Amino acid sequence: MDFLELSDRIIDSAGSHKQISAAATNRRQAPTDFSIIYSKDLLPASGGEKVTKEFLHELLNILLGYICKSSRRSGKVLDFHHPHQLKEGLEGFSLQLTDKPETLEQILVDCRDTLKYGVNTGHPRFFNQLSSGLDLIGLAGEWLTSTANSNMFTYEVSPVFILMEEVLLKKMQGIVGWSDDEGDGIFCPGGTISNLYSILVARYYFYPEVKTRGMRALPQLAIFTSEHVGLVNLEGSIKCQWKFLSSIQSHYSVKKSAAVLGMGSENVLMVKCDESGKMIPVELESSIVAGLVPFYVNATAGTTVYGAFDPFNDIADICHGHNLWMHVDAAWGGGLLMSDRHRMKLQGIERAWSVTWNPHKMMGVPLQCSVILIKKRGLLQDCNELGAEYLFQRDKPYDVSYDTGDKSIQCGRHVDVFKFWLMWKAKGSEGFGSQVNKCLENAEYLYDQLQRRTGFELVFKNKPEHSNVCFWYIPPTMRGLPPGPDRDTRLHQVAPRIKHRMMEQGSVLIGYQPLGDKVNFFRCVFSNPATQQEDVDFLLDEITRLGNDL
Amino acid sequence: MDFLELSDRIIDSAGSHKQISAAATNRRQAPTDFSIIYSKDLLPASGGEKVTKEFLHELLNILLGYICKSSRRSGKVLDFHHPHQLKEGLEGFSLQLTDKPETLEQILVDCRDTLKYGVNTGHPRFFNQLSSGLDLIGLAGEWLTSTANSNMFTYEVSPVFILMEEVLLKKMQGIVGWSDDEGDGIFCPGGTISNLYSILVARYYFYPEVKTRGMRALPQLAIFTSEHVGLVNLEGSIKCQWKFLSSIQSHYSVKKSAAVLGMGSENVLMVKCDESGKMIPVELESSIVAGLVPFYVNATAGTTVYGAFDPFNDIADICHGHNLWMHVDAAWGGGLLMSDRHRMKLQGIERAWSVTWNPHKMMGVPLQCSVILIKKRGLLQDCNELGAEYLFQRDKPYDVSYDTGDKSIQCGRHVDVFKFWLMWKAKGSEGFGSQVNKCLENAEYLYDQLQRRTGFELVFKNKPEHSNVCFWYIPPTMRGLPPGPDRDTRLHQVAPRIKHRMMEQGSVLIGYQPLGDKVNFFRCVFSNPATQQEDVDFLLDEITRLGNDL
Repeated sequence: MDFLELSDRIIDSAGSHKQISAAATNRRQAPTDFSIIYSKDLLPASGGEKVTKEFLHELLNILLGYICKSSRRSGKVLDFHHPHQLKEGLEGFSLQLTDKPETLEQILVDCRDTLKYGVNTGHPRFFNQLSSGLDLIGLAGEWLTSTANSNMFTYEVSPVFILMEEVLLKKMQGIVGWSDDEGDGIFCPGGTISNLYSILVARYYFYPEVKTRGMRALPQLAIFTSEHVGLVNLEGSIKCQWKFLSSIQSHYSVKKSAAVLGMGSENVLMVKCDESGKMIPVELESSIVAGLVPFYVNATAGTTVYGAFDPFNDIADICHGHNLWMHVDAAWGGGLLMSDRHRMKLQGIERAWSVTWNPHKMMGVPLQCSVILIKKRGLLQDCNELGAEYLFQRDKPYDVSYDTGDKSIQCGRHVDVFKFWLMWKAKGSEGFGSQVNKCLENAEYLYDQLQRRTGFELVFKNKPEHSNVCFWYIPPTMRGLPPGPDRDTRLHQVAPRIKHRMMEQGSVLIGYQPLGDKVNFFRCVFSNPATQQEDVDFLLDEITRLGNDL
Repeated sequence: MDFLELSDRIIDSAGSHKQISAAATNRRQAPTDFSIIYSKDLLPASGGEKVTKEFLHELLNILLGYICKSSRRSGKVLDFHHPHQLKEGLEGFSLQLTDKPETLEQILVDCRDTLKYGVNTGHPRFFNQLSSGLDLIGLAGEWLTSTANSNMFTYEVSPVFILMEEVLLKKMQGIVGWSDDEGDGIFCPGGTISNLYSILVARYYFYPEVKTRGMRALPQLAIFTSEHVGLVNLEGSIKCQWKFLSSIQSHYSVKKSAAVLGMGSENVLMVKCDESGKMIPVELESSIVAGLVPFYVNATAGTTVYGAFDPFNDIADICHGHNLWMHVDAAWGGGLLMSDRHRMKLQGIERAWSVTWNPHKMMGVPLQCSVILIKKRGLLQDCNELGAEYLFQRDKPYDVSYDTGDKSIQCGRHVDVFKFWLMWKAKGSEGFGSQVNKCLENAEYLYDQLQRRTGFELVFKNKPEHSNVCFWYIPPTMRGLPPGPDRDTRLHQVAPRIKHRMMEQGSVLIGYQPLGDKVNFFRCVFSNPATQQEDVDFLLDEITRLGNDL
């Protein structure tokens, strides 16, 4: 019996997994020759079941091959090619689209090639992005989600997913620390859009007329991003405001949102923070710009580069005193709420009026999975609803408050909840906690190693609060150089050159960037549960090996 | 040999599908007992390969069971339960999340239940939404996409997907009718966001200072939505404008976007259209509102309810004459460009400055897949880029113009291109054309049947231009009633009551809505290639059966 017959049996057996072996016999069928079969032969074509099963089994084999290879340290993180090389069609892998169909055999080959020339983000030595790893339960959730092929629009088309969204939102609100009668929110496509929602809703809260009349009906508003907000200045400036000082580190999503929302990026005001990227309430420099009205402060839980957490209680006190909307961008840092060991770093987040939290980052949920939580219930709906009756009929036979589509600035939304819900079922809250702890242990290990090894220098001395560790590699020829512009100029080129070699070799991948007056440095982040201490050692060995002669 | 061993062989066999049978033997392994295994036992756990393979094979069997059942007409479209019923935990299906992990057996049962209580959007008798069907190649594409688990941010992390996006955008621009040296664009999360992009970019084109200074630096702008724009008025109003007249049919995305963008929903101005939902250039009613400056006209290719196409050349003439940005919302109608038989309905679309086109609607690509095309190259980047060097380093070893993340209003973006690219490979442009033709044939068949059968009445008499067919069912007791408020009041309740019964029975699903002065009517749309004429007959029989006694 081949696996296609076998799968028929399993499908018909209504859920008992133990029948797999009982159902197996030795009967056999001829395998399908995909070189003469086309997509039109798959379901819904009449008699297409057999070919469909074989095709998806074959695809599964390709995907399983990739998954298993990804988890092996012997495999490469990437097989780099320049754009022009890939566009020329490497080894017959043509990206071009034609009028005529290709055979299913070619389609399967294209699938293999797509994976081959991509970047293995699940590899234990991929340290390049805040999202990494490949959670198998999350993956199963995504496969089911795409098989269900529905959207988050009305209860009518997505009853189960709509309820799962409610359950997840309530759970997350509880973890943030909001009471049972507080809390609203929505899953949306990424942290930048989540942050955009927070400004949108805050603006509506203070100035509901903006929805119909636009920004021209409002005074000139000012947005503060936390990490560079000087709190004393903010404290002293209740009726006036600030000018742009520095934008070196706050996530660009706030400025991007201000531009989109018609508020103007120059009305996003930022103040310096301390050496470890944390806002310093007493440190401030500012100038007053006449005519701006403050209404919104963005505090950050886990900055992108340093992983810093702002002092939320201090910020909340000021926001409370001056009736400002307090938002916490916990896209990256929210995951730490799942850990008993680390959640105190977010103390005061419960006082925020809105929170961004991306489970696709620290919690390892497959991309994308991002949420905006709003403390005050009903505001999101009021802000965004247009009540288009051709989309949201009120005379339906069920409780139409579950038709949540009009809360959104989208119309249909991708179903991002199921994979997350399934992972939560499979791990429990505790499982997420252990995962977070492990990533932060890796960061501590790297931090320790950097201090022990020759040739490495920390960008800031304090122990990292999140899993971000920032450092320079100093090649032997540069170790005697005095600090100054000459050394900086040379050091600035070290990280890019090492990264270039890394990409060519494909053995490991890590990001770098400059920041303010700091020249290019490596930022290592840990969010992949597959990563072990041996991978941290490998990273440092590899940087040393690749950068030794620079 | 069971399929797990078999798959090992296949994975190792480097691509030849014919080795499936050659690799098969009669060796056997004990099946895994999922009731004692947890997610922590899957990869990346040491020795987790076997369990991972078995788990994903088991999942595949569940998904295949669902896929095959979906395509059978004997299966239900949905198994409706009220929110409170699902929340109470039907047959042990608990939505609640706990601290402790569940076994993989429970996870698989949850997967089965999630599908069971969901809506079968791929069923040949699901006529409820503009997106329906389940394309198997698109599905394969989604499974691979989630396995690759990357995002559309930089070439560095998504080399292949970034290039596929470029290939698809160029192809679509060519089909719209733009020349080789025109055209830009981006894939984004849904048609409403695509339309939002068009207004955002148009605003920036005329008033680039809006990016930094906000709407308060601009005059009071007016947006026209096509279907209700009276062209003669528009023609005669070059220096002044219009008031809100009616918003009965234009897609709500334009108003929603105006609210988000800080432009104000009341500055979206609409004018009546004809009986079939098509804008009438000579028909106009308007009043002038002092102080508004027109800059943007949204024309529609395939309205949501009627499926109407606006006269693009007439609109383009006016936009050209008055230097207005012409956008075409072809979210629903864009698919018709793939058909030689129907593409003339979009004549003049090539004169638009931007186009929204959702392959996840008429082209059957799994949700979500939506694009905004912008004619003028570079504008999208200029409008949205902030040049955050911590995200987009310029000193990389490849052509960084492929780091397209800063074009977007998001930061990371979900990879929506691969499934579409793979479908195009598998079908060819011709395959999409046939698919579109078939859906429109079904609509014509329904249109004919409605005129032949007793008890049905068309909402508008003209042959539908798209696959939307709008009609009332008149129960026998109402057939003698004269037109008027009494008949309207009764008729208004017919569609909801039939739909209620449909949902309880689960045999078929179709949408209804009121529109302007028209009481509730059914709107049938065809976008699922699985639907045959027998399903159209079934729909009408079922409506008659369920509504006969009303």
